[in-house]
Amino acid sequence: MKIISDRVQKMIEGSSWVRRMFEEASLLKFQYGEDKVFDFTLGNPVDEPPPIFKEALKKLVENSGKGCHRYMPNQGFSETRAFLAERLKKETDLPFTENHIIMTVGAAGGLNVALKAILDPGDEVIVPVPYFVEFKFYTENHGGVMVPVNTKEDFSLDLAEIERALNKRTRAIIINSPNNPTGAVYEEEELKALSELLKRASQKNDRVIYLLSDDTYCDFLYDGLKPVNLFTLYEGTISIRSFSKSLFIPGERLGYVAVNPLFEEAQPLIEALILANRVLGFVNAPALMQRAVRLLGDWNFDPTVYQRRRDLIYETLVEAGFQVQKPKGAFYIFPKSPIEDDVAFVRELQNKYLLLVVPGSGFGKPGYVRLSFCVEEKTIERAREKFYQVGKDFGLI
Amino acid sequence: MKIISDRVQKMIEGSSWVRRMFEEASLLKFQYGEDKVFDFTLGNPVDEPPPIFKEALKKLVENSGKGCHRYMPNQGFSETRAFLAERLKKETDLPFTENHIIMTVGAAGGLNVALKAILDPGDEVIVPVPYFVEFKFYTENHGGVMVPVNTKEDFSLDLAEIERALNKRTRAIIINSPNNPTGAVYEEEELKALSELLKRASQKNDRVIYLLSDDTYCDFLYDGLKPVNLFTLYEGTISIRSFSKSLFIPGERLGYVAVNPLFEEAQPLIEALILANRVLGFVNAPALMQRAVRLLGDWNFDPTVYQRRRDLIYETLVEAGFQVQKPKGAFYIFPKSPIEDDVAFVRELQNKYLLLVVPGSGFGKPGYVRLSFCVEEKTIERAREKFYQVGKDFGLI
Repeated sequence: MKIISDRVQKMIEGSSWVRRMFEEASLLKFQYGEDKVFDFTLGNPVDEPPPIFKEALKKLVENSGKGCHRYMPNQGFSETRAFLAERLKKETDLPFTENHIIMTVGAAGGLNVALKAILDPGDEVIVPVPYFVEFKFYTENHGGVMVPVNTKEDFSLDLAEIERALNKRTRAIIINSPNNPTGAVYEEEELKALSELLKRASQKNDRVIYLLSDDTYCDFLYDGLKPVNLFTLYEGTISIRSFSKSLFIPGERLGYVAVNPLFEEAQPLIEALILANRVLGFVNAPALMQRAVRLLGDWNFDPTVYQRRRDLIYETLVEAGFQVQKPKGAFYIFPKSPIEDDVAFVRELQNKYLLLVVPGSGFGKPGYVRLSFCVEEKTIERAREKFYQVGKDFGLI
Repeated sequence: MKIISDRVQKMIEGSSWVRRMFEEASLLKFQYGEDKVFDFTLGNPVDEPPPIFKEALKKLVENSGKGCHRYMPNQGFSETRAFLAERLKKETDLPFTENHIIMTVGAAGGLNVALKAILDPGDEVIVPVPYFVEFKFYTENHGGVMVPVNTKEDFSLDLAEIERALNKRTRAIIINSPNNPTGAVYEEEELKALSELLKRASQKNDRVIYLLSDDTYCDFLYDGLKPVNLFTLYEGTISIRSFSKSLFIPGERLGYVAVNPLFEEAQPLIEALILANRVLGFVNAPALMQRAVRLLGDWNFDPTVYQRRRDLIYETLVEAGFQVQKPKGAFYIFPKSPIEDDVAFVRELQNKYLLLVVPGSGFGKPGYVRLSFCVEEKTIERAREKFYQVGKDFGLI
């Protein structure tokens, strides 16, 4: 008898290897003890929210005013949106107002809201490879088709590939810079060139091709890198942001979508985003968390600790002989697998060295593996010897 | 130039009258003062969360342990699910475990997760009329087609109508008892008959026809009514619940889906629900709120205050000459409009009497209006004279 949706059935089958691997890893932790197994698989940082945020929560809960937990407009609290608009104004020098901000259930909610607002059945969404695997599901949720395009050796954008992929069904491109899984950060020049491509194609097809910028990791920039102002480069930019990483509250599901104040047709887009937030069943971003971020003042995330972790894991992998790009942002690193079959390599790392990493196949890029370094420094240090051993055993050093 | 999705464009156009009405109402409040306008439109209760919940939040925020706001498994915290399973076990005398519970972003999230898990494109979902308008959007989000079926004069289920609507594309029926907008509560006998219908049709079509029970208002039962145990009546029951109403925290987005422990194929369904929660971008229900409900102990919602409000508004409408069913649950009442055109009637109530209500057309049932009584008692009392005046002016008394 038919129990579940065919589409969901296929997704479950397609990801059963992830679960098997996860189960094996759990078993290893159980057998050898948590501290003997080195887990570099998760995007769930070990860090705690900053004191200012904890204080804000305390204050709100102790003096919770009347109606503190009620519904608010689907767009989110006006005060919170005004606060975030003010921040964006400072960052970009553009006339953001609360009207341009839609509070969402994390960046995952924000991306779904954006895709629902713009996609018609069969519309194509370009995504550079490797990519966060959920982009495919999010696109398909709303009847879209994801079109993966290769990037260059250093994971920078391959504009010729993107140009070839653009056609009259193209509705959006999703970029994620700083990038999960590679740590790549796109440079102003390549983003300018991308904008020119998109402008020409939008004109030609008489439909806006949106630049969906998944800015989940925008605060994790290293070596003094400054964020590129995409809004100035391209009118059809929609920035999707999150407090999951910089405040270390991923479980609370708070993010927002920012529409470009320079976009002439901003108003209908904003209305569509608000409606999508409602009809997809998100309804609104969690109330208490919206109120809490409003109290952050001029607090900003400091990426110093993460830069140190980045340095440590990069050095470790280089010294172990891995071929690897130095991450410029985010908290992932994406070395080449020393053998072609990345899944087999991940298995061996797991079973022989108790090192847990994710195969590149999970990001549409076989032949690589992803390590997440949102772990404690000592975890990286203690894993160092293990990686050298891997390098030796696989003839890398 | 094409800006937004055609489907979303149509939804926006279809609901533009709601917004116009809302804007007019805001203007009235501004012109006459909030206290001169009687707003019976919203499902956003004026009440505050119970002290035990506020204390739980305080305790959690003051002693927030390490990792308090991190991701947890997509299904939700194991402790919270075990706690809710224990409650369901007591309520139903069935072997619920944490495995049967999936924590969701409100009941709206829960319904979308359930529909995503079970629907294939073109699958039909039966919904008794009048219905919560979002059911249509939720069904269409996942490629389904909503099939409205009439209810009887007293808004009880019309089983002959449902039988006629069942066919080989039918995948589910959504019931909402206690009901928004009518306040109807289905009786055990009619639910038993419905179950028999669904069993026969499931067998005939070799696919489970799910009974999605939107139990958002399950704690709002009056006159000592007890909830019917749907799980025992029908294996394919999926209960979708929410803390929005009984804890008065609708803005925090916390709910859950409960799968029937008597359902033989529960396991694949549970896996599909968990995957849907992830890929739809909900990811997980907000962490802090999950932790807080875990601390509710044996607290239960007391509907006494709401029963008094129900009595008051029902008496008022009856004395004003309206034709109206007495609500047995929820916090809505659905009288007949004294003129055929319910939208025109609502306009007149608004502009001439400063009474704000929602037209039945918004629930697929023209000729009626909905009043929400999740307002303070004194609001109902102060509106009493107004309703008598309406009754007189429209020749009802």
